Amino acid sequence: MAKKNAFYAQSGGVTATINATACGVIETARKHRRHIGKVYAGRDGIIGALTEDLIDTSKESAAAIRALRHTPGGAFGSCRYKLKSLEENQAQYERLIEVFKAHDIGYFFYNGGNDSADTSYKVSQIAAKMGYPLVCIGVPKTVDNDLAVTDCCPGFGSVAKYVATSIREAGFDVASMARTSTRVFVLEVMGRHAGWITAACGLAAEAEGDGPHILLFPEIPFDEERFLAKTDDSIRRYGYCTVGVSEGLRWPDGKFLSESGLRDAFGHAQLGGVAPLIAQLVRDKLKQKYHWAVADYLQRSARHIASKTDVLQSYAVGKAAVELAVKGRSGVMPVIVRKSARPYRWTIGVADLKDIANHEKMMPRDYITEDGFHITEKCRQYLAPLVQGEDYPPYRNGLPAYVKLKNTPVPKKLAAAFKI
Amino acid sequence: MAKKNAFYAQSGGVTATINATACGVIETARKHRRHIGKVYAGRDGIIGALTEDLIDTSKESAAAIRALRHTPGGAFGSCRYKLKSLEENQAQYERLIEVFKAHDIGYFFYNGGNDSADTSYKVSQIAAKMGYPLVCIGVPKTVDNDLAVTDCCPGFGSVAKYVATSIREAGFDVASMARTSTRVFVLEVMGRHAGWITAACGLAAEAEGDGPHILLFPEIPFDEERFLAKTDDSIRRYGYCTVGVSEGLRWPDGKFLSESGLRDAFGHAQLGGVAPLIAQLVRDKLKQKYHWAVADYLQRSARHIASKTDVLQSYAVGKAAVELAVKGRSGVMPVIVRKSARPYRWTIGVADLKDIANHEKMMPRDYITEDGFHITEKCRQYLAPLVQGEDYPPYRNGLPAYVKLKNTPVPKKLAAAFKI
Repeated sequence: MAKKNAFYAQSGGVTATINATACGVIETARKHRRHIGKVYAGRDGIIGALTEDLIDTSKESAAAIRALRHTPGGAFGSCRYKLKSLEENQAQYERLIEVFKAHDIGYFFYNGGNDSADTSYKVSQIAAKMGYPLVCIGVPKTVDNDLAVTDCCPGFGSVAKYVATSIREAGFDVASMARTSTRVFVLEVMGRHAGWITAACGLAAEAEGDGPHILLFPEIPFDEERFLAKTDDSIRRYGYCTVGVSEGLRWPDGKFLSESGLRDAFGHAQLGGVAPLIAQLVRDKLKQKYHWAVADYLQRSARHIASKTDVLQSYAVGKAAVELAVKGRSGVMPVIVRKSARPYRWTIGVADLKDIANHEKMMPRDYITEDGFHITEKCRQYLAPLVQGEDYPPYRNGLPAYVKLKNTPVPKKLAAAFKI
Repeated sequence: MAKKNAFYAQSGGVTATINATACGVIETARKHRRHIGKVYAGRDGIIGALTEDLIDTSKESAAAIRALRHTPGGAFGSCRYKLKSLEENQAQYERLIEVFKAHDIGYFFYNGGNDSADTSYKVSQIAAKMGYPLVCIGVPKTVDNDLAVTDCCPGFGSVAKYVATSIREAGFDVASMARTSTRVFVLEVMGRHAGWITAACGLAAEAEGDGPHILLFPEIPFDEERFLAKTDDSIRRYGYCTVGVSEGLRWPDGKFLSESGLRDAFGHAQLGGVAPLIAQLVRDKLKQKYHWAVADYLQRSARHIASKTDVLQSYAVGKAAVELAVKGRSGVMPVIVRKSARPYRWTIGVADLKDIANHEKMMPRDYITEDGFHITEKCRQYLAPLVQGEDYPPYRNGLPAYVKLKNTPVPKKLAAAFKI
């Protein structure tokens, strides 16, 4: 293929390491100048392509691009915007091709989860159908760790390290307060459908008595009575109890606990977290003093305690995406392959986008203990390597020094605007 | 004074660095064997002294004591237990002296906040009155940074570093999502009476447009209308808005927002956080998508991102306490003295316990901007040095390796039990 420009976009919820992937894409593209001209990024993801709002990454210095490796969030903006099916809105796909044509774009890199893999796949189909040569590569990312085929997902290892560290630290605090004050601590973590992040909390428990003592997975319907009995037992044995709970915890009837109908003083529904509900149960039924935390975005943006393994893998998938592209591979996604468990060794493999699109990888049942309240040794073996190693950002004035790019726009070439 | 044993206890809410102080006390005591025999720690704070439940720290290896320097929580247990006044319950004080006498304790180190300074002062008075030679030293600690006389409080700098880092990181996340999703992010932090921790969030904002865009201090009554206008303005200018809010935020009538009367589906009062309330306001009045986090214990136990300055100061007050004690100084507390602001230089000074007991150091009004929503340059100058430097703990299996002591009990010598 003659030299063409590349388009890169970030999609969906961002992570602490998605910019490490962007760094991998851009630095590697800069090394393949024979094939790749400029890398244009979509401002706010695919919306940037539809609205012809492109960012010229060639205006950024090598140092700025290098700093992406240690900067959380999505440097070019991301979006929650799913393209409709080809049948429903073919105009969207045609618009994409039109914009790519106008800017001489021959490579499409889409950095996201299941939906993004699906979009990349569809874009590759429509490009072929329209006779427009376009190499389409999906690049994996999601804190939820629920992509098919890949052994793990870039972004997950860092959240895992954050939640395991945080619940261990809070456990040390609660243990010291338990005699006269707080006996139960509840940490709410992300993962609405799959319990991978909840499971990662379990890594903090290495010896008998270590917290977290209880994990509440989205896969296991909440059994109030058994939970309270287990909490009470933990307090009796160890003096306190720490709990990691998924935001997606459900009642046996399938309803989310978070939709349990909290009302403010005026009777308005309140969108609360699960942690305060669990804590309140503990207070009402066990009469124990509690504290609760909701980590929310802190967990997925905590670049200051990123997993080195995760950063390396996040960069590697970006690099591999470009290397696959210049070889002309299309409709594929670089994935992480576990070559060996102990010692942990991994490499980058290649998967077809259609095998990844719209699948969700749930926690295997044998990763959760029989009583449903903790992780098994098998799960621990799987998770442990993913949090290995530290990769600290540089600090300035006592705080992590993260980069803000210039994000210079590419001059528009098309007359027509596109309404999203 | 002839060689005597020492008693050390941790009091009140623990911090990420109170064990660094314990490390300073014990390591320094071990260097003064001519004056100090064994260091006995109170199990669960002063309760351990009252119930004669003492821990023999001489049973711990030098490596274990060294590891306290990087371990959060209170290694010997703490308690929320305030001794009554001398008039109300002289028996408590007499019991303390009885236990100290039984175990040949001549030094009393009490590591805590205002209340603990008060207790130390009273214990020194009663000892003198009873003719029992006891050197009483208060050792400062509190994440609230509200102790009088000392320039800052050991434990505060690390919380400050954590909250400033966290809100900066979450800000990078929200900025990338704002086009189609979350536009407002609210982080709730500790500090029920004084806004020092809320102020520390402000350190993350270094340039025009940086978050946090709004701080809600406990010192400034919450003005809903002005808050919403400011939030709206921030979204218009920067595309998003991040907010740091104190758990102690109050309505103009003085009531805590956290007591605003959230009810569950059954009408039971819910003890919620402030962050979800603020977020809900944003949703209802501005129709913007929001996320919120409550850091709770995570902030005060986050040893993984402790401030090096704070760790050094926490250790130094422990060391100084013992050095003061062997010189026979009693009724005093080592404090941190700021010798110079830029470059930041500090030293350890000495204050009388009675000048510290029961005072609360509030944020000066000129540390808060006129509109009440941010910190002034003067405040930034004060806070900035306190978060300087990193002091990472060692890691094992990808997680911080914190020490759990053996906490071997000292055999009891008194026949009578004491009911607390």
